[in-house]
Amino acid sequence: MESVKDRFITHIHALQDRICAALEAIEAATTTGPAGAAAASPVGGARFREDRWERPGGGGGISRVIEGGAVFEKGGVNTSVVFGDLPEVMQQHLKVSHNRFMATGLSLVIHPLNPYVPTVHANWRYFELYDTDGRVADAWFGGGADLTPYYIFPGDGEHFHRTLKEAMDPFSTEYYPLFKKHCDEYFINKHRGDEARGIGGVFYDYLRDTAAPGASAAPAASLETLLSFQIAGGNAFLPAYLPIVERRKDLTWGDKEQWWQEYRRGRYVEFNLVHDRGTLFGLKTAGRTESILMSLPPRARWAYDYRPEPGSAEALLVEYLKPRNWIP
Amino acid sequence: MESVKDRFITHIHALQDRICAALEAIEAATTTGPAGAAAASPVGGARFREDRWERPGGGGGISRVIEGGAVFEKGGVNTSVVFGDLPEVMQQHLKVSHNRFMATGLSLVIHPLNPYVPTVHANWRYFELYDTDGRVADAWFGGGADLTPYYIFPGDGEHFHRTLKEAMDPFSTEYYPLFKKHCDEYFINKHRGDEARGIGGVFYDYLRDTAAPGASAAPAASLETLLSFQIAGGNAFLPAYLPIVERRKDLTWGDKEQWWQEYRRGRYVEFNLVHDRGTLFGLKTAGRTESILMSLPPRARWAYDYRPEPGSAEALLVEYLKPRNWIP
Repeated sequence: MESVKDRFITHIHALQDRICAALEAIEAATTTGPAGAAAASPVGGARFREDRWERPGGGGGISRVIEGGAVFEKGGVNTSVVFGDLPEVMQQHLKVSHNRFMATGLSLVIHPLNPYVPTVHANWRYFELYDTDGRVADAWFGGGADLTPYYIFPGDGEHFHRTLKEAMDPFSTEYYPLFKKHCDEYFINKHRGDEARGIGGVFYDYLRDTAAPGASAAPAASLETLLSFQIAGGNAFLPAYLPIVERRKDLTWGDKEQWWQEYRRGRYVEFNLVHDRGTLFGLKTAGRTESILMSLPPRARWAYDYRPEPGSAEALLVEYLKPRNWIP
Repeated sequence: MESVKDRFITHIHALQDRICAALEAIEAATTTGPAGAAAASPVGGARFREDRWERPGGGGGISRVIEGGAVFEKGGVNTSVVFGDLPEVMQQHLKVSHNRFMATGLSLVIHPLNPYVPTVHANWRYFELYDTDGRVADAWFGGGADLTPYYIFPGDGEHFHRTLKEAMDPFSTEYYPLFKKHCDEYFINKHRGDEARGIGGVFYDYLRDTAAPGASAAPAASLETLLSFQIAGGNAFLPAYLPIVERRKDLTWGDKEQWWQEYRRGRYVEFNLVHDRGTLFGLKTAGRTESILMSLPPRARWAYDYRPEPGSAEALLVEYLKPRNWIP
């Protein structure tokens, strides 16, 4: 039987194909340009562009980027499998002395054109550390998915959270509440008065075989079970996100909504560049900058001390940017 | 005679008034809106808005911000005088054990509307650390000014560098080459293949009375002389920058130039949020976020793996984003 590593890698490549095909299908079905103010010239039918890259120290990746679509203004769906000597900064960060590693995962960020369609981010990753004789000394999964709307439709948030929860519950009903809390705690702009980046989702890391020494306090599971959990989470992405896109992509918007979308995307930039561990780690260990920063929005805006009008739809969003129970 | 601290504070407040008045005068003289594509509705005559704020631990500041002008799309000219207990993170950073401090300075960033007018950043600051009996145990000046054009007019860069050099030369002809080099080394996006943020200027820190123990290897000077140096540098700002604004502000531009300006402003955001010590220090020590992030541009843009057309004006800019001798 194939190793957990090989099966996970097969899964993320298939998932990358599936997600890109589903997003392209929505573009292909949107043959008329949008009515919005941002529509300089986007037309339906945008396709992903693929870049395959190699890492000098070992491994590489497949970056797929879509830009200028009628539905998806900018997005990336990237996979990578990298391995080699563990950089010293990473040994310190992980508090380990192993010096060979393998890291693989799928990471995606989608910024739709229409301000009524939320931005989404997700990733699923697997990490192995090796003994000097090449045997796996430590291994864990990490990942999650979170939603960043510009306008609040409570049913959309509920659908997103519920779909993620239903994918996790068969493994343990402890997972969703625990990982939803981790997500709420992680995607926070501390320098903005603890404002959340969006309305959350799930986030987890260091999910190890609980028979292994030093395993975290998550519900008991073998690495095999965690692989199934990870695959189920990845497979839940399209059902969690696409119905929201379909519901909102044809709503009409104007300059005001576009301005607000750009302003809020400034906060997305702030989180990713100031706080996101993955982004900073990648930039500081000489990762492929264009793949790492595919997460940044196509457009962003900053205005001094801006506050939305009380009672407005924009003010309502800000009220939602704190932890909340999304499943009644 | 007033202390160095008090005279420097008097200077920065007067300089803040003078700079704001000069920029407002340019706005007032520009009564027709610009011809460019970005001109949603800017009209001449934009004024600075003032916010006075207090720091819970001691001191406060005066933030002045201009937005939506016909010449200056977004800019801030801020002063602050803060003092109190030295945060532990700052003790570690400065490698000192003193626990009382005072920090004061003027910091400005101006983002003009017209892509042919460069963004400019400058600051001049003074820092004191105190003994337990309240006497000054250590004191130093820091500061600098640097220019970030979107299009290259070699004469503009030469004028900017020459004006700064001429303000410094009377104190020592060693200053300009040394501080120009510091600037070239500091304002670098390492994660973008060591691309410079702009075309540099001068940058310096820890300028101490060279009779004091532990003073840096700059040319010998007393704190009194350094105060005069600092004042001369601040006074050189308007002569260094305004002639460039006057020369370029009425040039006509279009969508292409605006797109490029926004794209390059993305790099400005990346530098400030990923690398700039002052910004990160402020955000992580609970500084006033709106004053710290006034440095961010009004609009920014990211595009995947974009490369300007060889031989274009945009490609020429990129060629200039490395250290260069600006004074023939």
